[in-house]
Amino acid sequence: MVSFETLDQNALRTEVEKLRKEYADLQAKNLKLDLTRGKPSPAQLDLAADLLTLPGEDFRDGNGLDCRNYGGIDGLPELRAIFGELLNVPVEKLVAGNNSSLEMMHDTIVFQMLHGNVDSVRPWSAEPVVKFLCPAPGYDRHFAICEHLGIEMIPVPMRPDGPDMAIVRELVNDPLVKGLWAVPIHSNPTGVTFSEETVRALATMPTGAQDFRIYWDNAYAVHPLTETDAPVYDILAFAEAAGHENRPFIFASTSKITFAGSGVGFFGASAENIAWYKKNLSFSSIGPDKINQLRHLRFFGDADGVRAHMAKHRKILAPKFEAVLNILDNRLSDAKVATWTRPEGGYFISLDVVDGTAKRVVQLAKDAGIALTAAGASFPYGRDRKDRNIRLAPSLPTKDDIEVAMDGVATCVLLAAAEFYADIH
Amino acid sequence: MVSFETLDQNALRTEVEKLRKEYADLQAKNLKLDLTRGKPSPAQLDLAADLLTLPGEDFRDGNGLDCRNYGGIDGLPELRAIFGELLNVPVEKLVAGNNSSLEMMHDTIVFQMLHGNVDSVRPWSAEPVVKFLCPAPGYDRHFAICEHLGIEMIPVPMRPDGPDMAIVRELVNDPLVKGLWAVPIHSNPTGVTFSEETVRALATMPTGAQDFRIYWDNAYAVHPLTETDAPVYDILAFAEAAGHENRPFIFASTSKITFAGSGVGFFGASAENIAWYKKNLSFSSIGPDKINQLRHLRFFGDADGVRAHMAKHRKILAPKFEAVLNILDNRLSDAKVATWTRPEGGYFISLDVVDGTAKRVVQLAKDAGIALTAAGASFPYGRDRKDRNIRLAPSLPTKDDIEVAMDGVATCVLLAAAEFYADIH
Repeated sequence: MVSFETLDQNALRTEVEKLRKEYADLQAKNLKLDLTRGKPSPAQLDLAADLLTLPGEDFRDGNGLDCRNYGGIDGLPELRAIFGELLNVPVEKLVAGNNSSLEMMHDTIVFQMLHGNVDSVRPWSAEPVVKFLCPAPGYDRHFAICEHLGIEMIPVPMRPDGPDMAIVRELVNDPLVKGLWAVPIHSNPTGVTFSEETVRALATMPTGAQDFRIYWDNAYAVHPLTETDAPVYDILAFAEAAGHENRPFIFASTSKITFAGSGVGFFGASAENIAWYKKNLSFSSIGPDKINQLRHLRFFGDADGVRAHMAKHRKILAPKFEAVLNILDNRLSDAKVATWTRPEGGYFISLDVVDGTAKRVVQLAKDAGIALTAAGASFPYGRDRKDRNIRLAPSLPTKDDIEVAMDGVATCVLLAAAEFYADIH
Repeated sequence: MVSFETLDQNALRTEVEKLRKEYADLQAKNLKLDLTRGKPSPAQLDLAADLLTLPGEDFRDGNGLDCRNYGGIDGLPELRAIFGELLNVPVEKLVAGNNSSLEMMHDTIVFQMLHGNVDSVRPWSAEPVVKFLCPAPGYDRHFAICEHLGIEMIPVPMRPDGPDMAIVRELVNDPLVKGLWAVPIHSNPTGVTFSEETVRALATMPTGAQDFRIYWDNAYAVHPLTETDAPVYDILAFAEAAGHENRPFIFASTSKITFAGSGVGFFGASAENIAWYKKNLSFSSIGPDKINQLRHLRFFGDADGVRAHMAKHRKILAPKFEAVLNILDNRLSDAKVATWTRPEGGYFISLDVVDGTAKRVVQLAKDAGIALTAAGASFPYGRDRKDRNIRLAPSLPTKDDIEVAMDGVATCVLLAAAEFYADIH
């Protein structure tokens, strides 16, 4: 096979015909496969089986606290110390919560809409409009929060070292730009890890809004696919040194470490931000599920326990990512109809197909029983202007299923591309 | 001792002198006792010790669902069935969440502030003002949510069968009255259980606001101090029959059944309300901690399991309430300086001292090392206009400590009353 772009119309028509046959064979398999969401597989969940009988009889943490009763809105100090080490956040600036860091992100935005943050002159809802910068492709659930709350989203292109900082620097001069979404390590879905230079630039750049906040969703801080952990830069210290200590809001969770639905979420920020968060939170909660935190504390022991645990995840995940990449390499390289990321961690592979064909590819795949994330889902308002990006999530299915599914996806990508170049729609 | 009101000034001065000596003796004991919050005691928490090693190896519910992964925003059907039976809510109209029903109350109010509910023409925050009726004395955390969100609170007197319905009926004609707080069974702090007539009246009365909601916090539905459970009236059915099916928002939790900080919260409402709630919630959560729900399901087995468990709580709690009542009876009856409730369930005794002396009593107690809930805490804005109500929470301390503390409190009540009548301040 040669690059589709170099084929003449006759050759393209032949290619379309051949691929349509291939696609018909694919449909005949009556597949029912799902690559849509970044869910851990049962084998990964099995790694944390000990949690099912923890904490055991002893319900006290190392400080003697009875974890069963109300209270303790900060979460258990010993568990916060473990994740403080992993996330590069001082323990006193890190809160441990319930099972969802997404909830913490949502809640802090709602608190700001209703009351503003410690640097606001008025609630965000009293501004004519609130805008967030959205490096894209990015995480659809981040963007969904903004859309639901009427926050205007401005897409910013992603580069190999993070969001395009020239564009970010210019856009943040607008005092109505109040926030920026970031997944700094093994980003969803691009796999991009921000360089130290990018982290420093984000932490220190001048902004028009004095109450500007970076939503630093460090969801994949300890989730490498290689043997080397990505460095976790100390964005709080960078920001503090530049006089912007209240700028970063740091989030993380154990959802992709232990049990996806029954983990512990974390929120890290300056002392002033943490006091603000706890005050707002105190109206809705008397404290997090500390027994679940104790369960996690006993399970991990220390930060090295988390790292050792993540190595087990890697052994399950890495071959699945490899399988996806092998099929993409083998089936799509020559035709030059797509590019894709080779992530060093995280949960996703980002696939760019021929501009204008992503929706078609997803539809073709769907009609062949292969569920892919909706085209455009990784962009604000679900709008991929170039209609080219598809997010692949290989964690949940078995390796065998992934190979079948990805082979089918490759057929769909090729067919859509051939039709496009042949101008057959 | 005779009624202080009948004493002449000389006799009152003698009484004050005697009580001041008694109070000095009390201070000399250097007590450190706490009757402030409705926290379960360690002995009560011990009743649920099995939860510390549940759910055990099997992580699937009865429908075969892997409870470890993301999803399932409704919560486990089997657990919802158990509490649906206890709360008189059809299972499909009941959602099980994380560890806090307070959070569910807070969140639903926030959703309405930002977006309105299914019957709203605009977000509540776009109204000139939003008002809630607050039967008082009531639960301070309910009132705190309103105050924090700028919702105007209108106190309504409590009667032995619920809020004064003549007043409620009149006030709800105001279309800006959007809500009413209620703890229908063993109310906090009065212990009042609403009569069927009151429940029907609340469910069916005309209201000025079409998007009016009753916050039905059934926190003590299965928490009797006697052998008889209070009837749980079907407010959803009453409301539906009157064409107001969306009016009740029902809340409950296992916080005072299993572990106070690690229980399961419930939200019950009409099908339309539940769909609205889940849609709004979906922006912040991918689902509740289903493993904790499975843990509770295995622990209880069925609704009778919950009832049997609550009988064990009763055996611990009832003697503590009896101890408080005995001391109040013995020390305060003759002087006629206070009245108090004799609750048949719940967590509180409501003590009314001589008008204008509640703050003084709480201060005297504090200075003698006995922490009481702040005077006025059970009223909107913390304002008890008559300065007479004190909430007593006997659950946490041991019976011995309660007796020592209450004897001290009685001395403080008598001293404050004698000073008041003697006009010595």
